[in-house]
Amino acid sequence: MKHKSKNIPGSIVAPQGFLASGVFCDIKRLGTGKGSNKGKKRDLALIVSEVPATVAGLFTTNQISAAPVKLCVERVKRGRAQALVVNSGNANACTGRQGMKDALEMTALVARELHMPVGQVLVGSTGRIGVNLPMANVKAGILEAAQLLGNDTAHAAEAAEAIMTSDTKPKQIAVEFKLGGKAVRIGGICKGAGMIQPGMSPTSARPAATPSGLHATMLCFITTDAAIEAKPLQTALTEAVANSFNRITVDGDMSTNDTVLVLANGLAANPKLKTQNSEFKMFQSALSHVCPELAKMIVRDGEGVSRFVTVRVKGAKSFVDADAAARAVANSPLVKTSWHGGDPNWGRIIDAIGYSAARVVEERVDIGYSSPGAKKILYSLKRGQPTKATFKKLCAAVAAKEFNLHINLNLGKSSALMYAADLTEEYVDFNKGDVSDPAALGG
Amino acid sequence: MKHKSKNIPGSIVAPQGFLASGVFCDIKRLGTGKGSNKGKKRDLALIVSEVPATVAGLFTTNQISAAPVKLCVERVKRGRAQALVVNSGNANACTGRQGMKDALEMTALVARELHMPVGQVLVGSTGRIGVNLPMANVKAGILEAAQLLGNDTAHAAEAAEAIMTSDTKPKQIAVEFKLGGKAVRIGGICKGAGMIQPGMSPTSARPAATPSGLHATMLCFITTDAAIEAKPLQTALTEAVANSFNRITVDGDMSTNDTVLVLANGLAANPKLKTQNSEFKMFQSALSHVCPELAKMIVRDGEGVSRFVTVRVKGAKSFVDADAAARAVANSPLVKTSWHGGDPNWGRIIDAIGYSAARVVEERVDIGYSSPGAKKILYSLKRGQPTKATFKKLCAAVAAKEFNLHINLNLGKSSALMYAADLTEEYVDFNKGDVSDPAALGG
Repeated sequence: MKHKSKNIPGSIVAPQGFLASGVFCDIKRLGTGKGSNKGKKRDLALIVSEVPATVAGLFTTNQISAAPVKLCVERVKRGRAQALVVNSGNANACTGRQGMKDALEMTALVARELHMPVGQVLVGSTGRIGVNLPMANVKAGILEAAQLLGNDTAHAAEAAEAIMTSDTKPKQIAVEFKLGGKAVRIGGICKGAGMIQPGMSPTSARPAATPSGLHATMLCFITTDAAIEAKPLQTALTEAVANSFNRITVDGDMSTNDTVLVLANGLAANPKLKTQNSEFKMFQSALSHVCPELAKMIVRDGEGVSRFVTVRVKGAKSFVDADAAARAVANSPLVKTSWHGGDPNWGRIIDAIGYSAARVVEERVDIGYSSPGAKKILYSLKRGQPTKATFKKLCAAVAAKEFNLHINLNLGKSSALMYAADLTEEYVDFNKGDVSDPAALGG
Repeated sequence: MKHKSKNIPGSIVAPQGFLASGVFCDIKRLGTGKGSNKGKKRDLALIVSEVPATVAGLFTTNQISAAPVKLCVERVKRGRAQALVVNSGNANACTGRQGMKDALEMTALVARELHMPVGQVLVGSTGRIGVNLPMANVKAGILEAAQLLGNDTAHAAEAAEAIMTSDTKPKQIAVEFKLGGKAVRIGGICKGAGMIQPGMSPTSARPAATPSGLHATMLCFITTDAAIEAKPLQTALTEAVANSFNRITVDGDMSTNDTVLVLANGLAANPKLKTQNSEFKMFQSALSHVCPELAKMIVRDGEGVSRFVTVRVKGAKSFVDADAAARAVANSPLVKTSWHGGDPNWGRIIDAIGYSAARVVEERVDIGYSSPGAKKILYSLKRGQPTKATFKKLCAAVAAKEFNLHINLNLGKSSALMYAADLTEEYVDFNKGDVSDPAALGG
């Protein structure tokens, strides 16, 4: 079902009954001089529902997962939550027992300030790995954020800013649609930039069928005033994430902290959504619009990214094959550098397909390009052989900032896509870090 | 058995009865003006044994393999060969029927010039993918190379130069050792630079147990005057390559053309080598010294490489696990850029281990550094927790041009190593190509 929603402002506070705030509390301890906080990027966000909400979540399948991930996995199982506190600048990952104590303390502080059960509070972190949180700063931030909660677009934007790390801009969306005559809204914010190839599952455990190539920290927080139980909410989120956040890659590295959470507080008073009823499908459709829009913002704003490429593989023997071929191409350093240079180097593309785990037959492979939204595909390769398309025309196709790469294996009926980015000198320069300034090194 | 060999000059012509040459025949068609060939990098090599030799080979497991690879797989099965022609500048990959015709023609030309059966001639190619060979140039090159064969070090060096693509220097080695009182020699040349993570098998078919992350074109040609049958020669080569060329990565991309060939002409007149006899073990030991030395030259001279890192994983539950963890670390863009910056970022390392297919438990992981040849390991992480090693000391450990990275999973008894390189702005700049000059684009 095609979604019939309209975009509205306000992201996470667009749905009824949600409040947000974002503050600077100096998580990276850049300096705590009084009065010096003006203009500094916010680093702690609070998102709160006025009434208890149902909750669903997906989490990194990295075997090394951060304390906030471990805590959320447990609390989301209960299906109910009302608040969420998120810091940037420190991932609280590989921080041992103190890390879990700190994550618990963050939720306890929120619960005390907002007068709610601690079990109703969730937590997220992103930033450097292996450093304990500066809890005095975090505490001051939580107290301030709790005072500053509001439901206008400025508050949502402050929360979106607070979760950013190497992102160059905040990422927000909200949509409105009708369910059983009632206006329902879904809003979301997210962050990404580097260490981006999420592979998330509801329990953080790796499913047997998880493609081998799963790998920023990406965080996404979604709010909705839809009335929906936790179980169908989880079903809808899992479906939406499978076709969005789990289909993106910037650098192929899967983070210890990837998290997507959705809170549904029911204030829209729509008829309860059950999987299989048509209203549920409409909700699914809207959520399945919101998630890829946010996911694509992450790829476009990835570290050093200059090209956004949608890799579309079809004609594979199975989804696992289609996925393997798409990920091999999307993560090949040689393919990614050729995109950066605007070089339509199909040799590198077919090379990557050939070493992937997918079944491939050289004489069957088609490779082509299209502009976003256009139907016409310009083929560089048909059945394993170069077409008559001129080098100049092919260069023009890959010179665009955004294009589709079409690969048809012509062996079966399965398909998969990946939202991918190029590899640039800027990515390398950014991530090689500055060892003269350990605090500035990314996690 | 530790090898007892001494290094000698002459690489592939050091063993008795081998001749070589390297010429410029303008495979990339840069310009064919008469008299203008002085100072141009040679691009066609010929290696010949004065008498028929036994042969063994390993080839890329990429499903897209070049015509010369397909041809060699078939001819090596027969176990006998006497000559080898190799061009750089064009991979003769994805070149359809014409590509196979051209590969056959190259061997037929050599056979005619050298008066030997065509089935005794092997062929290798490296360079751009998807462009047919300029056969007039190739033919002229073969005729010239056949005239210029010689057995001194200059001829070997010219052949080593002729197989280079983006390599900045030729790669050669030769050793001498005793077998049953006879002096036996092994010599080799190789090339690499980009598209380097070979995963080779004798038939080019992917073994069921091949690690999923297998991926320059690397070419390696070895000569020996040892007397050894084809079957034990294949056994020895497979063992040597498993611990050398199949353990290197520059960029994680596996080529369509990776090839290792060894010719053994028996002129040393040692007692015939049979697997299990002690002379065979000495031969194995010498070959298992030559291959990693050549393989490490490829990594050190990889495109844009500024750091050479030996990733040593131990304590894994199985070899497959150890290999998966080592490859994940060795191919992680974030780990590789941190090496480039001299940043001892263990967070990125444990993150990569965590998303690998290897079983990992955070609280067990040790990570440390040592200098090449030194025994002392400086640990940054012990049992998942940062050690007291200062940031300054850790920076000093990774500031070196070459170091060992030690990872102990502390879960089992299996180990694996990878010879790896950093990721630099130069790599990106080199590979983004120059679309204003299609002929200059790498394959």
